[in-house]
Amino acid sequence: MFMHGLHDLYYAENQIMKALPEMIEKATDSTLRADFEKHLTETEGQVHRLRQVFELMDAEPKGEKCPAIEGILKEGRELMGEIDDDDVMNVGLIAAAQAVEHYEISRYGTLKTWAQQLGHDQVARLLEDTLKEEKNTDASLTKLAESLVNQWAEAAE
Amino acid sequence: MFMHGLHDLYYAENQIMKALPEMIEKATDSTLRADFEKHLTETEGQVHRLRQVFELMDAEPKGEKCPAIEGILKEGRELMGEIDDDDVMNVGLIAAAQAVEHYEISRYGTLKTWAQQLGHDQVARLLEDTLKEEKNTDASLTKLAESLVNQWAEAAE
Repeated sequence: MFMHGLHDLYYAENQIMKALPEMIEKATDSTLRADFEKHLTETEGQVHRLRQVFELMDAEPKGEKCPAIEGILKEGRELMGEIDDDDVMNVGLIAAAQAVEHYEISRYGTLKTWAQQLGHDQVARLLEDTLKEEKNTDASLTKLAESLVNQWAEAAE
Repeated sequence: MFMHGLHDLYYAENQIMKALPEMIEKATDSTLRADFEKHLTETEGQVHRLRQVFELMDAEPKGEKCPAIEGILKEGRELMGEIDDDDVMNVGLIAAAQAVEHYEISRYGTLKTWAQQLGHDQVARLLEDTLKEEKNTDASLTKLAESLVNQWAEAAE
């Protein structure tokens, strides 16, 4: 089950790496665009870390189709398809990105716990490093959403 | 976009209410079963709170098919289908439940922020109440996962 989780997550990270450039292209707010670009670089690092995990577990780094991330990304794309306004788009992109972040937080959290308890300490540390990055990304997106919706609400007054 | 999010979430909560009895049935650990039963009662309360939100927004409480929760629940069911062992099942059920919790945490978080900034204070408070419950559920599931995997690792030694 632990290995299954790792293969799922490897698939998910690769899907996220494909989705991020679309999101960067749609973002018109410069801070959001910079956040997404930073997150793309981080995601590449996270994929690299997962490859190290597979090496430590003596397993091939291959992905396994994961319906959860497919659904989350599909919902994000559907929402984006319905939005014309730039300001609404930026706020919608953040919501989509945070749904992805929380999926990753839950998976990295679970797999880190399993790795720790099963005695794979080095693997647990690698998963913990990524978990911290995901939590930071989520927190910075929350801040940005608050400031964007604030500007937007003020402009509407 | 705010109303769209509420309709998505209403659909998601109703799907979760359908999935929980299956999960309760599969759980063999008594603490986990009690946690899931408590969570089912809480979910009923959360659906009720969402109905109050729709009333405050002067809208019909109807759901909108939400690919994200479908994918997350599908992944959980697929995983459950592959597990024979009771101990592994309990730990797998927690992982599935935490993926659901994190989806809800991200959505309630987003919608609460939007409600606040758009001046729907009473709605924001209702969403915040549920957000707190979801975070507590997630924390108690993390604790339980640690203790179950611990027992399991000790038994395997």
